[in-house]
Amino acid sequence: MKVCLLAKIKTEILDPQGKALEASIHRLGVETIRNVRVGKVIEFEIEGMTKEQASTKINELCEQILINPLLEDVSYEFKD
Amino acid sequence: MKVCLLAKIKTEILDPQGKALEASIHRLGVETIRNVRVGKVIEFEIEGMTKEQASTKINELCEQILINPLLEDVSYEFKD
Repeated sequence: MKVCLLAKIKTEILDPQGKALEASIHRLGVETIRNVRVGKVIEFEIEGMTKEQASTKINELCEQILINPLLEDVSYEFKD
Repeated sequence: MKVCLLAKIKTEILDPQGKALEASIHRLGVETIRNVRVGKVIEFEIEGMTKEQASTKINELCEQILINPLLEDVSYEFKD
């Protein structure tokens, strides 16, 4: 079972990488792009579990290692 | 119009960050997770264009600054 997990910096928290990228885009003359935010996409395969068991395990791993719950919001979906 | 763009390291290219994360997950005792890959999610708003115009502009920006086309595959979708 394939999992696609998105970790996005919470909207109330400043995203310096997004700000820097937005400034670079504007320097290229594209002023119509705004509110650039940069996060992580983590993809992996998880085997030998039901979706419910996998969700429990992924939620545990989010707390432990996958994201920073103070700074990032997480969402994920199963594929296949 | 909101855009969610995913930049993923091409499957044939080694992803050291994904490998390191996978090793950490295994050290936490979760051996059932494999093929971890880490990429970027870039979200932004783009205004004053049709979806076709926006796609053209985003494709240009992908070549110029958003991703490294030698290393990364890109996909994006419009929201709203």
